[in-house]
Amino acid sequence: MSSSSEKARQYSHEHAERFRYELHELLRFPSLSGDPAYAGEVQRAAQWLAAHLQALGLKDASVMPTAGLPVVYGEWLGAGPGKPTVLVYGHYDVVPAAMEDGWDTPPFEPVEKDGKIYARGATDNKGQLFIHVKALESYLETGGAPVNVKILLEGEEEISSPNLTPFIKANLDLLKADVCVISDTSMRTIEEPAITHSLRGMTYIEIEVDGPKEDLHSGLWGGAAHNPALALVEIVQKLYNPDNTIAVPGFYDDVVPLKPEERAMLAKVGLSEEQYKAVTGVPALWGDANYSIRERISARPTLDVNGMWSGWTGPGPKTIIPARASAKLSSRLVGNQDPVKIFELLKKYIESITPPTVKVKVSLLTTGLPALIPFDLPEMQAAARAYEKGWGHPPVFTRGGGSIPIVADIASLLKAPVVMMGYGLDSDGLHSPNEHYSIEMFHRGIETAIVYLDELAQLPR
Amino acid sequence: MSSSSEKARQYSHEHAERFRYELHELLRFPSLSGDPAYAGEVQRAAQWLAAHLQALGLKDASVMPTAGLPVVYGEWLGAGPGKPTVLVYGHYDVVPAAMEDGWDTPPFEPVEKDGKIYARGATDNKGQLFIHVKALESYLETGGAPVNVKILLEGEEEISSPNLTPFIKANLDLLKADVCVISDTSMRTIEEPAITHSLRGMTYIEIEVDGPKEDLHSGLWGGAAHNPALALVEIVQKLYNPDNTIAVPGFYDDVVPLKPEERAMLAKVGLSEEQYKAVTGVPALWGDANYSIRERISARPTLDVNGMWSGWTGPGPKTIIPARASAKLSSRLVGNQDPVKIFELLKKYIESITPPTVKVKVSLLTTGLPALIPFDLPEMQAAARAYEKGWGHPPVFTRGGGSIPIVADIASLLKAPVVMMGYGLDSDGLHSPNEHYSIEMFHRGIETAIVYLDELAQLPR
Repeated sequence: MSSSSEKARQYSHEHAERFRYELHELLRFPSLSGDPAYAGEVQRAAQWLAAHLQALGLKDASVMPTAGLPVVYGEWLGAGPGKPTVLVYGHYDVVPAAMEDGWDTPPFEPVEKDGKIYARGATDNKGQLFIHVKALESYLETGGAPVNVKILLEGEEEISSPNLTPFIKANLDLLKADVCVISDTSMRTIEEPAITHSLRGMTYIEIEVDGPKEDLHSGLWGGAAHNPALALVEIVQKLYNPDNTIAVPGFYDDVVPLKPEERAMLAKVGLSEEQYKAVTGVPALWGDANYSIRERISARPTLDVNGMWSGWTGPGPKTIIPARASAKLSSRLVGNQDPVKIFELLKKYIESITPPTVKVKVSLLTTGLPALIPFDLPEMQAAARAYEKGWGHPPVFTRGGGSIPIVADIASLLKAPVVMMGYGLDSDGLHSPNEHYSIEMFHRGIETAIVYLDELAQLPR
Repeated sequence: MSSSSEKARQYSHEHAERFRYELHELLRFPSLSGDPAYAGEVQRAAQWLAAHLQALGLKDASVMPTAGLPVVYGEWLGAGPGKPTVLVYGHYDVVPAAMEDGWDTPPFEPVEKDGKIYARGATDNKGQLFIHVKALESYLETGGAPVNVKILLEGEEEISSPNLTPFIKANLDLLKADVCVISDTSMRTIEEPAITHSLRGMTYIEIEVDGPKEDLHSGLWGGAAHNPALALVEIVQKLYNPDNTIAVPGFYDDVVPLKPEERAMLAKVGLSEEQYKAVTGVPALWGDANYSIRERISARPTLDVNGMWSGWTGPGPKTIIPARASAKLSSRLVGNQDPVKIFELLKKYIESITPPTVKVKVSLLTTGLPALIPFDLPEMQAAARAYEKGWGHPPVFTRGGGSIPIVADIASLLKAPVVMMGYGLDSDGLHSPNEHYSIEMFHRGIETAIVYLDELAQLPR
């Protein structure tokens, strides 16, 4: 380990507590990207981040507009042209959170308890993006970083980054880098760091079933009108086979089969039925019995109902036949499934199984490409060494079940490998009530990010 | 027609406009019985009604407490013990209504347009109960009524009258009557008055399916957890057979088969596929093909999804596996189905088809007995004559598809026949957005109610 990275690590130890309280400030912004009512909060979070980067010495750091919510960008090029450039990507937007969903404390008032920071966005992704900001600060305050660093923070990741690809295309020179590092994935336990070399893509749709022109009195009309909620039930049911696979014709056609060596690697990070039940609280497991649990949740495509609504959902009874019923469904995709083709298959199939007693509308909400990065690249191996030195444990290479839609685009547009060094824990509860982030993870992450920059500086060019 | 009823009719003509504007006042109370937040409005509506009855000369009219929302009771016994006593039952509570459901004007700000009064409760039941109040006023202001009249108005009909049976049991002497008249049903067109001699009962349940202990990130966990929304879909789907009949074992066991003469009578008020589609707006019909449309909606039992909800229902995507999914379902029952037995059959069946991957809870929200009244009773035949004289058209005897849960109890506890002279139109949109009431219907109803009291006075005792 170089003396500069040692000094940076030392600095990060000395300022650990302040780093956390700065993170609290960032967590206080309810920067929800999915709800236009929160656009102002997203803007304020972006401004806070840009000001923070400026204060670290990234003088031109700024909030840059897109067709949607803004990007925060800042760069430090003090290592000079002879050194590699690292692009750090993170996102400062979050998914919704409300007390009534089951939070023990207000989701945008961070609290520390039992070694964890509780807040929406704590692990996904404000805590993890802040690791890189603080790693860079630790270098800059102790003489400078060994590589050039560009920081790109987006505000629309949770709505599938609709405007980031155009932004990258319009700023290819600005963003040019030798490697992109993203910390937005997780490990099973803190002793088992993981480098994610694959991510699932996504097709997110909404189905609306329309029946009567308005809600009907079920006593006056019940018995001769097809209840739209029942029609929706019949449609959703038909999307699945009895063995829990997806019944949409053609859905699996482009899935690249798992090789035996990949299955062996996934078995190393196997998840037992008991572990899955303990973390999720489900009474029993479900899914395609031809695949292990880890394979089902990371290497196989899925189709899930994310939301469903129809008719009267308030207190007490109301005896209506609802005028309509809706559902949001999303499919996690794997290589080489194409999100738009999957949407078309879903739409065609849903329309074909909709009975003539109702009308159906199938809309595409978002898409994201799946991604697969070779794990023998030097930048990936450097990340493995950084974990060994900074963390004390060698990492495993694993597949992430989630989607970071932009990973595939960054890799292809910037022609740079994307290294996913996730500093989350599977049990952090991201997107759930009481999302939290391990304080130990936060500090170890900063140290490892410091070491990783040092490892990159030493790669042969 | 007696001269007293002629004078009362004359009075009702002269005061028609004022009657309507008084009804508007009553319609302004958002007297929702299903939502505790509106208990104060229900109370205010009750007080307005009691004061109104007092002003007509029912000096002891009052708001009487129950274990839930109050009853309004008033009586005029001026005809003397030699004359029959009529108990008028109505309800002043309403189901919810909000602009966003599709109302063109605020639901609690009545407006008159194209010969109709638009407001929640206009037809169900404030407009119809007010007919009897104004018929009585018309007599009292022109010398007195030919029979004794007791008026019982409840505030919990829309939540299945949980406290009215105990109230009746505690007040049998007070409520003693020779006949009970209820106007809370409807006719197909204004030229076809109908006396309802049968009503459907009800079993209203809620199903809650629980899966993970909290919402899960669908990327991290999707593929191995049974989505509670999907489990609910599977359960609801299994409640029906492919021929649209109900698959719950034993559900039809106690249904009294329709006799050929009953089917012939129902055929007289037949509803064509085109008529049904025009009123409801459904693109095609549905149901048990062994029965006519009129039979399906009035003489056969049903099971409908009234509401369904799970997961994320706000704008934009949210990639979760919801922790739970719920549905409200209600079954319209016919003689001799027992609502509690039907609940037990539903509960047992739902529990038996719930997979071990989720937990299920089936709760009973409300019940109501079906009712069947012989139509050859003198009080029923008097009603038929009243329609001929007051309306100008003879009525048909029909079955109502809706439920007035208390009808069966009134008949058995007070040992009095219940005559259902509905002054609604099938197309009034009750329980729907833009509920309305025909102004002509309101005035014809008052005249017919006047004539009916006269007819009852002339029955041999």
